[in-house]
Amino acid sequence: MKAEILCVGTELLLGDIINTNAAYIARELAAIGIDVYYQTVVGDNDGRLKDSLTLAFSRADVVVMTGGLGPTYDDLTKETVAEYFHKEMVMDTASLGSIEGFFKRLKRPMTENNRKQAMMPEGATIFPNSNGTAPGLAVSENGKTAILLPGPPSEMQPMFQSSVLPYLMGFSDKVLISHNVRVFGMGESRVEDALHDLMKNSTNPTIAPYAKEGEVTLRVTASADTKEKCEEMIAPVIGRIREVLGQYIYGIDVPNLQTAAVTELIKKKVTVATAESCTGGLVSERITQVPGASEIFGCGICSYANEIKHRVLGVSKETLAKHGAVSEQTAEEMARGVRKLSGADIGVSTTGIAGPGGGTPEKPVGLVYIGIDSEKLTTVLRLNINYHKADERMYIRHMTAQNVFKLVLRALENY
Amino acid sequence: MKAEILCVGTELLLGDIINTNAAYIARELAAIGIDVYYQTVVGDNDGRLKDSLTLAFSRADVVVMTGGLGPTYDDLTKETVAEYFHKEMVMDTASLGSIEGFFKRLKRPMTENNRKQAMMPEGATIFPNSNGTAPGLAVSENGKTAILLPGPPSEMQPMFQSSVLPYLMGFSDKVLISHNVRVFGMGESRVEDALHDLMKNSTNPTIAPYAKEGEVTLRVTASADTKEKCEEMIAPVIGRIREVLGQYIYGIDVPNLQTAAVTELIKKKVTVATAESCTGGLVSERITQVPGASEIFGCGICSYANEIKHRVLGVSKETLAKHGAVSEQTAEEMARGVRKLSGADIGVSTTGIAGPGGGTPEKPVGLVYIGIDSEKLTTVLRLNINYHKADERMYIRHMTAQNVFKLVLRALENY
Repeated sequence: MKAEILCVGTELLLGDIINTNAAYIARELAAIGIDVYYQTVVGDNDGRLKDSLTLAFSRADVVVMTGGLGPTYDDLTKETVAEYFHKEMVMDTASLGSIEGFFKRLKRPMTENNRKQAMMPEGATIFPNSNGTAPGLAVSENGKTAILLPGPPSEMQPMFQSSVLPYLMGFSDKVLISHNVRVFGMGESRVEDALHDLMKNSTNPTIAPYAKEGEVTLRVTASADTKEKCEEMIAPVIGRIREVLGQYIYGIDVPNLQTAAVTELIKKKVTVATAESCTGGLVSERITQVPGASEIFGCGICSYANEIKHRVLGVSKETLAKHGAVSEQTAEEMARGVRKLSGADIGVSTTGIAGPGGGTPEKPVGLVYIGIDSEKLTTVLRLNINYHKADERMYIRHMTAQNVFKLVLRALENY
Repeated sequence: MKAEILCVGTELLLGDIINTNAAYIARELAAIGIDVYYQTVVGDNDGRLKDSLTLAFSRADVVVMTGGLGPTYDDLTKETVAEYFHKEMVMDTASLGSIEGFFKRLKRPMTENNRKQAMMPEGATIFPNSNGTAPGLAVSENGKTAILLPGPPSEMQPMFQSSVLPYLMGFSDKVLISHNVRVFGMGESRVEDALHDLMKNSTNPTIAPYAKEGEVTLRVTASADTKEKCEEMIAPVIGRIREVLGQYIYGIDVPNLQTAAVTELIKKKVTVATAESCTGGLVSERITQVPGASEIFGCGICSYANEIKHRVLGVSKETLAKHGAVSEQTAEEMARGVRKLSGADIGVSTTGIAGPGGGTPEKPVGLVYIGIDSEKLTTVLRLNINYHKADERMYIRHMTAQNVFKLVLRALENY
């Protein structure tokens, strides 16, 4: 089954709001095996709306529309769909009742134009709206189905889950399952090069790569009669990807590196403390993004000044004078110092030149040391992070934090 | 002039990423008076891409496209545009040079498929990409113009500002100048209510509000023959906005609150130190995002555990036992403690319930105390941050940090 998404609204067209509805609906449709080939945004204009609807139905069986169900004169979606299907608009008394009830609960007067929201194309399937006044609806005839949903995501999303999904599942007998393989430390082109044969020939399961901020995600998707069958088809593909990418994979279906690391720390009951210089608190900030982080994290020191490195973390004055703040020795002493101060199992540290200024030929922007200190392992990783980008400073800090979590995950293999 | 926006990418079509590019481009085009009637999203498929391009050019003079400029075999935008305009693809040596330079700086091997990114339709205008490998370009013939931009917003947006706007302005003989008035602490509808008359009657300069994550930006844009004329037209409008919004304005043309605060700290040579609990390092992370922050920031303590609050910051055991970690008293002692530890002029602290767990009827999720301690002022701000949203934890932490910077700016008025 082929579908299109048609979002109606001048505020979308002008960019006043971002179209999160299209992404949400696309994801939901993909998950139940309905192909989407086009998404369109059109303003509240009856001619262009009708053209867009006609075009969409020339290419697809189902058109999912959002917006234009409101009470005002420029909300025309229902009327346009009724015209397309040659239907009369009739009052839906059930919808009228719930709109009246909605205003009663809010203790607000119901204006006359709200009655318009209960007018429906004859024979439509109505989707109740538990979060607003505009009901959704579907009109289906001769193999063409229009699904009309309210624009506000807070009304559209619950309606999609409770009414639209069951309505659409009635059309198909396939199940679709995806898993996301998360990769760090290898660029998109290198990943694609390495997996070229596997990806090129992938049809079911499919393998799709997405690159973002120094990470690659491979989405593996299978379609079959049952969930179990899908999983059976996916498992060997992920196995093959693991063989090729090995240690570059940090998790399956995890949202990010810090969640992978914190989850593993919690699982193994290993505590961590941070001593940050160039990342300025980014590592502790990311650790504490993860709910439950307090189980394994209690202390982070952002020792931006040398004096704090010495006085709070105990980095020796000799080390700072001889090797400088950005050095293997300082990174090691920072990690050891914060471990001692906090009593944590693992101390991690960062020190480097995040730029834009501060670089020298010996210590250029992007030079970063990451220290890790624990009973089982003490080591310092030296990185040269170079990325010619307007926000290089942010990128260097981001990549430093990413590498910290990767290093913590590696250290945890010993626990 | 009529334009359409055509975004290319299977990851958009499947909803794996939200299409922020369309909104960004729509807003930018609207600001220079170019009408957009349709936005379309299509996957990396040559037939459908060609159909979409043909359709778009049947309705518009300019088609702005994003995505599909990457190095892999399924990136087809340039080839499709070349075919549409009957152009050969030729190697652009300047682009090849900068791609090679990009990889050299990264010290990574350049794979063969990256050369593809330097192949361009003959006669195209090239837009250099200072943030990635794919240059943008424009092809213009017989009154039809295609503008091709990379998909990642971090590459697309700077390119739009530095190359596409000047290119499009070449179609007109006017100059366009914008200034951004940054507002914090007042919601979008309140801002619009307060400025209703001013905004409703604004044509040149225009006033456009953008709301994002608890902030409002008012973009004031004038069009005239010269820069100077634009500035003359804008100045009284910004003056009027200042009269109405007063202290809610934290800056003009500053990128964000932390930059406003750090810039002011540097200017007044006032140093700051942070003691964070619920924000987990976010405040120090944001301070150190700003280049030069080391002049005014040396020490941040993330005291996530009570023991660290006591042992490192000197919060008394009695306070913690009697009032709890989330309390006015703890916030005050944290701020004082970090000021003393660091020797900074101002100590700031955060403690609160970021959720999702940990709330009680007395101390619900969203309750946050911000402490500030200095020679001139010691105070604690109590906030109830409520936002019923999937990423509430992130929002609470974000709003806490925002309020810290607003409070620092206010404290600096005494210096």
